[in-house]
Amino acid sequence: MEINKKRLMKNLFSLAQIGMNEVGGIDRWFGSDTDIEARKWIVSYWEKNIPNAYVSVDAGGNLWARVEGKENVPPIVIGSHHDAVPCGGKYDGALGVLMATEVMQTLQEHKISLKHPLCLVSFTGEEPNPFNVSTLGSKIISGRLTEVDLEKCMNRNNGQSMETAISNVGGDIHAVKKLSDKDIAAFVECHIEQGHRLEDRQSSVSSVSAITGIYREVITFHGEANHAGTTVIGDRKDAFLACADFALQMEKELKNYPDGSLVGTIGHIKLLPNEVNIIPEMVEIIIDIRTCDRCKLENIIKKMDQLQRNIMKERDVPIERKVNLDQPCMKMDSVINAAILESIAEIGEEAIALESMAGHDAANVARFTKSGMIFVMSVSGKSHCKEEYTPEEDIKKAGDVMLKTVQKLDERI
Amino acid sequence: MEINKKRLMKNLFSLAQIGMNEVGGIDRWFGSDTDIEARKWIVSYWEKNIPNAYVSVDAGGNLWARVEGKENVPPIVIGSHHDAVPCGGKYDGALGVLMATEVMQTLQEHKISLKHPLCLVSFTGEEPNPFNVSTLGSKIISGRLTEVDLEKCMNRNNGQSMETAISNVGGDIHAVKKLSDKDIAAFVECHIEQGHRLEDRQSSVSSVSAITGIYREVITFHGEANHAGTTVIGDRKDAFLACADFALQMEKELKNYPDGSLVGTIGHIKLLPNEVNIIPEMVEIIIDIRTCDRCKLENIIKKMDQLQRNIMKERDVPIERKVNLDQPCMKMDSVINAAILESIAEIGEEAIALESMAGHDAANVARFTKSGMIFVMSVSGKSHCKEEYTPEEDIKKAGDVMLKTVQKLDERI
Repeated sequence: MEINKKRLMKNLFSLAQIGMNEVGGIDRWFGSDTDIEARKWIVSYWEKNIPNAYVSVDAGGNLWARVEGKENVPPIVIGSHHDAVPCGGKYDGALGVLMATEVMQTLQEHKISLKHPLCLVSFTGEEPNPFNVSTLGSKIISGRLTEVDLEKCMNRNNGQSMETAISNVGGDIHAVKKLSDKDIAAFVECHIEQGHRLEDRQSSVSSVSAITGIYREVITFHGEANHAGTTVIGDRKDAFLACADFALQMEKELKNYPDGSLVGTIGHIKLLPNEVNIIPEMVEIIIDIRTCDRCKLENIIKKMDQLQRNIMKERDVPIERKVNLDQPCMKMDSVINAAILESIAEIGEEAIALESMAGHDAANVARFTKSGMIFVMSVSGKSHCKEEYTPEEDIKKAGDVMLKTVQKLDERI
Repeated sequence: MEINKKRLMKNLFSLAQIGMNEVGGIDRWFGSDTDIEARKWIVSYWEKNIPNAYVSVDAGGNLWARVEGKENVPPIVIGSHHDAVPCGGKYDGALGVLMATEVMQTLQEHKISLKHPLCLVSFTGEEPNPFNVSTLGSKIISGRLTEVDLEKCMNRNNGQSMETAISNVGGDIHAVKKLSDKDIAAFVECHIEQGHRLEDRQSSVSSVSAITGIYREVITFHGEANHAGTTVIGDRKDAFLACADFALQMEKELKNYPDGSLVGTIGHIKLLPNEVNIIPEMVEIIIDIRTCDRCKLENIIKKMDQLQRNIMKERDVPIERKVNLDQPCMKMDSVINAAILESIAEIGEEAIALESMAGHDAANVARFTKSGMIFVMSVSGKSHCKEEYTPEEDIKKAGDVMLKTVQKLDERI
């Protein structure tokens, strides 16, 4: 039994039409008109093409299609998300939703009836979005975001409330609830790797052993505003130069992890007063550090403590640090991981498991039930851009692995 | 003959009430309500306290008070500006206007009649302002800003046109005209030093030999946006790290000028996409370099060329540089400089001339007629902040120097 590659690719390109902009990128962030259009496409496809499916939208706006099994037990869930970053690619998220759909269709066509109910899911707002909350839908069902939290969220661009945005996609923030392993027996998500480890070893597919922890600090450098002309270099307490010093010394430390098992990024900066003729008074950066290894994280934090002390002393620029995220690494379930690895071996590929350095809905689901992931190779590791690409042959292999995995899990859990 | 210190200080503190905020800084930028209020105060003071003065506002909104001399020749002009940076100090600008006023009053009280007409001036918008044009009023009379230029200027905060802003202060951008040495025989401006060279040598006052050249480049670092988790360090083309590298290497070069004869500042930065989980794709900075020595400027530009080449090569991050200002150093007039130096010696102070590392209206005026400046000591060199301070005794000395200088110039030019 194999998935129907042609049908899956056709669906992938159909869904990619929704939100495609003039340069070929996909604009389909949470709350946009194209998000709503994509939801309609998915619901309509499920209703038309999956006999006996019960299609619904939950309070978080997540889309579900449920087909009952032979027993009255919690379902196995497969899927991913359909939203995209601005000018994103065709594969990130959408491939996981459509591959799950394809697996369901293939099982039905072959009249395979499972013991467990089987559910498809397409999560709400997985990507960074104007509400500043990513993996929104899975955070809601895992209880990481409650009604009270959601009431505070607002679209930074147009001031729209989360209540309205969720209501617009068929949800209701006042009815959200935390799920448990009584609601979902297991979750498996297929996603592009977004790195090039698979490509480097000429592999198409892997299991995921763990999803990275994400640690973020807001670091503020307190310099002294002064006149850019009349202040001699010895008198300057330049917040920007202190920040540049910190960034470059951190880069040296980060070079100790060339394998990517720990990465760090300064992606956000704010400078005050940001005037061309005034020495910067205040610089705020956010540093994002990711690793699956708590020891490595603790080591790099110690290095940051040292840098903070040294730079404060050398430059007389006070440095303040505040942790604003410390999301632990989430291990994927060992039963699911084993099933995926065996399935990979059965299709004649090298059975490996990689750590995911990106966050995924599967990490939230892992907080309350068995969760696992299948990575499929992405060319040059490109993602979150229109150049994102995975060849059909690799997608086919990943689909077959998922098909086998679902059947194994149906027997084993 | 000496100036009336008490009256001058009283006027300084009266004018400082206009725009004083709750922390004691002065909010009085060009186009603000307090700018207009300060103008009314000055005009009213001149009309009440300077007999025979003809008070007027020119097309650029500059305030003038003219008292005729014994001969029909171009006037000697003294003054400065009354606007302030946000949360600025009491002395920057205002002191120069009120000291000129005090000199005029003292001459009249002593019934000194000059050969030349004597004019007071308070220039429009000398400080950086929401229209992104500093030394606005003196740029207009020197022809550096024409009607066509002014029609393009807009308040970046509220979209107000320059036409409206100038009209609100009594000017008319359609009537601006370039002045020549037929309109002004000589201009002398008194201003706080905004550095601590005078304080360091325990001097109260100096002449100014030249006003610094200002050279600015917009430098753009073109990196590659990429996922902050899945991109290993060896694959990164981080525009922010390239920029930090450039900034720190420039700092090393700038340390070769500890005397402040050349200074450089990166005060403005823009980062794209500025998202915490995306490696910076593009960083734009503006570097501001000031020196009175063209050779030193050319040397530092050569160093920047080298840094650009090296960093581009090492980091594979293209760097683009565009000159957006190359304002030459303006020498002050030698006759005025000599008169100021002699006057300083006459009051028993050390006669020195300093370079000004800040821009001033006097630099624009120097483009079309004789122009000179008197610096008065500012404690710790503080300026553009509420801590700006100059003791009364130093102000008194500067006032007496200006009084003597005006009389010498009346004889010599």
